[in-house]
Amino acid sequence: MLSHINGRQICVQQQRIRQKIFYFGRTLDYEFSYGDDVTITPRNYKFTFRHMGELDNHYAIIGMAHVAGTYPLYYDAINEKGLGMAGLNFVGNAVYADVKDGVWNVAQYEFIPWILAQCASVSEARQKLAGMNLVGTPFSEQLPSAQLHWIIADKNEAVTVESMADGLHVYDNPVGVLTNNPPFPLQMFQLNNYMKLSPKQPECNFSDRLSLCTYSRGMGAIGLPGDLSSESRFARVAFVKMNSKSGTSENESVSQFFHILNSVDQQRGCCEVADGKYEITLYTSCCNADKGIYYYTTYENHQITAVDMHKENLDGTDIVKYPLVTGENIKYLN
Amino acid sequence: MLSHINGRQICVQQQRIRQKIFYFGRTLDYEFSYGDDVTITPRNYKFTFRHMGELDNHYAIIGMAHVAGTYPLYYDAINEKGLGMAGLNFVGNAVYADVKDGVWNVAQYEFIPWILAQCASVSEARQKLAGMNLVGTPFSEQLPSAQLHWIIADKNEAVTVESMADGLHVYDNPVGVLTNNPPFPLQMFQLNNYMKLSPKQPECNFSDRLSLCTYSRGMGAIGLPGDLSSESRFARVAFVKMNSKSGTSENESVSQFFHILNSVDQQRGCCEVADGKYEITLYTSCCNADKGIYYYTTYENHQITAVDMHKENLDGTDIVKYPLVTGENIKYLN
Amino acid sequence: MLSHINGRQICVQQQRIRQKIFYFGRTLDYEFSYGDDVTITPRNYKFTFRHMGELDNHYAIIGMAHVAGTYPLYYDAINEKGLGMAGLNFVGNAVYADVKDGVWNVAQYEFIPWILAQCASVSEARQKLAGMNLVGTPFSEQLPSAQLHWIIADKNEAVTVESMADGLHVYDNPVGVLTNNPPFPLQMFQLNNYMKLSPKQPECNFSDRLSLCTYSRGMGAIGLPGDLSSESRFARVAFVKMNSKSGTSENESVSQFFHILNSVDQQRGCCEVADGKYEITLYTSCCNADKGIYYYTTYENHQITAVDMHKENLDGTDIVKYPLVTGENIKYLN
Amino acid sequence: MLSHINGRQICVQQQRIRQKIFYFGRTLDYEFSYGDDVTITPRNYKFTFRHMGELDNHYAIIGMAHVAGTYPLYYDAINEKGLGMAGLNFVGNAVYADVKDGVWNVAQYEFIPWILAQCASVSEARQKLAGMNLVGTPFSEQLPSAQLHWIIADKNEAVTVESMADGLHVYDNPVGVLTNNPPFPLQMFQLNNYMKLSPKQPECNFSDRLSLCTYSRGMGAIGLPGDLSSESRFARVAFVKMNSKSGTSENESVSQFFHILNSVDQQRGCCEVADGKYEITLYTSCCNADKGIYYYTTYENHQITAVDMHKENLDGTDIVKYPLVTGENIKYLN
Repeated sequence: MLSHINGRQICVQQQRIRQKIFYFGRTLDYEFSYGDDVTITPRNYKFTFRHMGELDNHYAIIGMAHVAGTYPLYYDAINEKGLGMAGLNFVGNAVYADVKDGVWNVAQYEFIPWILAQCASVSEARQKLAGMNLVGTPFSEQLPSAQLHWIIADKNEAVTVESMADGLHVYDNPVGVLTNNPPFPLQMFQLNNYMKLSPKQPECNFSDRLSLCTYSRGMGAIGLPGDLSSESRFARVAFVKMNSKSGTSENESVSQFFHILNSVDQQRGCCEVADGKYEITLYTSCCNADKGIYYYTTYENHQITAVDMHKENLDGTDIVKYPLVTGENIKYLN
Repeated sequence: MLSHINGRQICVQQQRIRQKIFYFGRTLDYEFSYGDDVTITPRNYKFTFRHMGELDNHYAIIGMAHVAGTYPLYYDAINEKGLGMAGLNFVGNAVYADVKDGVWNVAQYEFIPWILAQCASVSEARQKLAGMNLVGTPFSEQLPSAQLHWIIADKNEAVTVESMADGLHVYDNPVGVLTNNPPFPLQMFQLNNYMKLSPKQPECNFSDRLSLCTYSRGMGAIGLPGDLSSESRFARVAFVKMNSKSGTSENESVSQFFHILNSVDQQRGCCEVADGKYEITLYTSCCNADKGIYYYTTYENHQITAVDMHKENLDGTDIVKYPLVTGENIKYLN
Repeated sequence: MLSHINGRQICVQQQRIRQKIFYFGRTLDYEFSYGDDVTITPRNYKFTFRHMGELDNHYAIIGMAHVAGTYPLYYDAINEKGLGMAGLNFVGNAVYADVKDGVWNVAQYEFIPWILAQCASVSEARQKLAGMNLVGTPFSEQLPSAQLHWIIADKNEAVTVESMADGLHVYDNPVGVLTNNPPFPLQMFQLNNYMKLSPKQPECNFSDRLSLCTYSRGMGAIGLPGDLSSESRFARVAFVKMNSKSGTSENESVSQFFHILNSVDQQRGCCEVADGKYEITLYTSCCNADKGIYYYTTYENHQITAVDMHKENLDGTDIVKYPLVTGENIKYLN
Repeated sequence: MLSHINGRQICVQQQRIRQKIFYFGRTLDYEFSYGDDVTITPRNYKFTFRHMGELDNHYAIIGMAHVAGTYPLYYDAINEKGLGMAGLNFVGNAVYADVKDGVWNVAQYEFIPWILAQCASVSEARQKLAGMNLVGTPFSEQLPSAQLHWIIADKNEAVTVESMADGLHVYDNPVGVLTNNPPFPLQMFQLNNYMKLSPKQPECNFSDRLSLCTYSRGMGAIGLPGDLSSESRFARVAFVKMNSKSGTSENESVSQFFHILNSVDQQRGCCEVADGKYEITLYTSCCNADKGIYYYTTYENHQITAVDMHKENLDGTDIVKYPLVTGENIKYLN
């Protein structure tokens, strides 16, 4: 549960260009895990919304969740229609509204299910957002409201949703990336400062009277930040994603997606949050939103693990959980 | 074979602190593979040196090699005594000597076998280096001499070996990291510019009359470069390695080692070396130099694969090869 | 006249700490000059406001202006009460309101006179701003409305005023610096990324197992940007100003103020705005707002030139102009 | 006297392109002054060299010196033939030789007079350097040997001279800039990392699928460092010098030269070398090496002051001194 998390995350939307297959994934970075499962919510699971009654029938959902009793508190998920959504920490900036009449009052923890249960596209989500009031009602006394912002994406577009002191903002997200603070418009603006970075070797513009040289490959992106602050990770993963080239098969596409997110991996030791406590990338995920497959790795397991929602009975009423595989599964050849 | 490689690599020496177990590994980054195998050279394989006759009996070696006929052209390897050695590109700077009398004339391609076959420690390697003449004799007409420099490491220390126009240099390598250009002393010197970087959050030194804030975790290392040039990768992996914290088991240590090297992973698309050609991290390795186990991942296979030299007959005469596993081995849970 | 200027400027508020004497100055950077004078507007000069009638009696003002006919179009100025104000380019972001009833409709070009004529402090200016409507009425057909934002400062505080599509913003400006794009809140936010910069030498936090060294003085501010973009200049001049130490005499204080602004000097050749056209720092100013003295240098005259408002008849009705001294006045000792 | 100076300096060679007039100047940065004069050494001043006897007749010299008794300890100077030379701190790297036979043994403090007294060009200086042995003989007990390196320049070329543990190095200096540590080859090498910096606005190479923009002029040099470390100052002043555009008159050329050096001005407060002690740019100089005019500014005097060697009797025997003008000479217009 993200309730208390001051941690960090990165979310990426990516398309397999030719086939327009849509991949959606994220990292979740924190110093410990709340206990997470790959969780499938079938079509007939009954969602009880705090301020809006029940929803008996809806799109099936697969994603990573902390399951509280029988309720899936999703961190990130996709639905069977190919819409993805993830919540990321937004501490110090997230402010939720009070309950009011004449709108859909959605509690912060219900936001992912509410959208994914009903919307088949970002376009449909935009309509829901227009009539929605995002409120701070906590899930329980033990699980208070988390300060989050969200990315909602399909194969054609992405939006960022930020609820702040001055209201609810829905921003077009042309880069398909979200991290944490500062607010999204500031993150996007800073990309302008990196506009000359390139995967190609630089030309010498410094002076035509000096013989400067490219003494190494990869000098075109000098200036790209390598630290673990959220603004630096936003720029880095944006650069990697926008220049990424993938093979065309499913496995190559998934592999490449993990390479993109690994560019912002948090190694244990490099982000000390308290004496001897380190934020790490607890898990990294990649959903094939077309096929409904949830791929992931964990910090201590480099092998990619997968759960396919279509191998479950999607017309069921109970959630299905697959606990995270967390130890290295090494393949010994001899 | 590194012969023509203008590509890049990173090598890291790391210890599991408490038990003083020594891990040694590298990335190999290039736009295509020459065909590589995890290759074990048993004790009685006959090494025929070009200028020094034969060596019938020696330490057993495991490492990554392009095997030309029956000859293992090692990129990186360890021996059964826990000494590791790797060759990395050093294009434009490597200059080899001519054959001369009264010294050991070692061809560049024989350097790794010659050291690992005979030396049990860096200290012993230093003695060999003192009487050695590194010459440019090519392996064959098809495999001309590669421009390389080397790191030699055991659990106590590491050295860098660079053969340049002004002679052979053997440098202490206190950081236990090697990349490519520029020469090692320049790489080490540049680390001074990053001395204030830290895994901890920064204090505000800018001004005591401004309320600046740490709006994100991980701001202590702002200034660490994130691009793929060799100088930037050297600084980045040095920072990650020096601040890395690992669990104590073998699997956790190996996992952490891959996290360190993943911090300089080259994603396909981010380093374009010719139209539509991209340098990528072809493989990443981690040897447990105490146990003689060679772990690796490949660009298209995130799962860690392992070969244990002690599961082979180390008293044999023929090399043993394990071809690289190169496709994703995904574990499906349903 | 700033009407068409896409150029750049920097404004700084500074106090002589002990005596609390207030200095206020700026650079004006552009590729050519419109013809500027140090211009004194005495108390009985009749200001005719476009939408608000006339003002016969007011505070005297000294500053840099392009004088159109007999009207002083101020770039920056102070009044006899010690309030300073400057307009800086804000191209692409400035949006002015339409004229409406029940408020003071101030044309963009009247904004500096309107405030400085009537307000003795930032506090008084805030009250005026609360009832003001900033409109885009141009001075003339030849001199259309400029896209600007403003800094207003006295010895105790400073505010930034930005009129944008979403209305008029009045921001506290704790750093006492303004440049150009992006909007002020983004500029201030970016300072957080520089919080660990210091005038003192850095400690080694990179690793306690490496002997990194301060090979040069001045390494504490590594990471401070040195280019001529507005965001970089904002950070640089903010760092220099906040850490500046001055002697206590008037001349030392003025000298130090010019050193602060020289840290963001634009050298001819370093900012090419069109083929063979270069933005340069046309003039740099420093007002002693307590004494009413306007000091300045020009690009081609390093000597400081001064005009003292109190040496003129401040009860007059006509403006007094001192054309800029623009050639080097070199003192030959032999 | 630079004897104990751990301070910093920057030296620049510059040509007035069309007329090929040669300007040569420097900053001297330290926390206090030893007492310096613009000092002219006429042709018949008798130089007594410590290990090489006397020199009665030689080229006349003008430069900045601490005069010890009647001996000019030059920091920087030019001679009447248009050759310039300056010594800059090189603490921790400078190592001088012992006196030996069969060569010219030049004491470190005699190096500038010895070269400028006898050489009309860099080419002639190279010949002298070939037969020279630079020794550490101190000027006196009170004035021990300073750790320096040197730049020698004429209108056609420049060289850097560094005496280190491995001998005397004479490097071509294509950029015509010298600062302090690290050694010159490392400084030059680092410029490669800035090769893509430009005075022109950048193109967007980050991605063709994002609309990034140049929100400010001057974004082409983002990445240029702005701090006061010697490596950063080297890069910054090199960029400014190589891209500098000057008017064609003497005054414009001199003015532009000071703008170049002002780009690395050290403001009081930004480089704290001990509690409450700050390194500042004590003086900045610009010699017209063709005309023999020494122009300078001091930290507390922005006006350019000038001394013309040809206005003195250059056939004299005694040095002529002009004490530095150190207070602001402000021109009041009213």
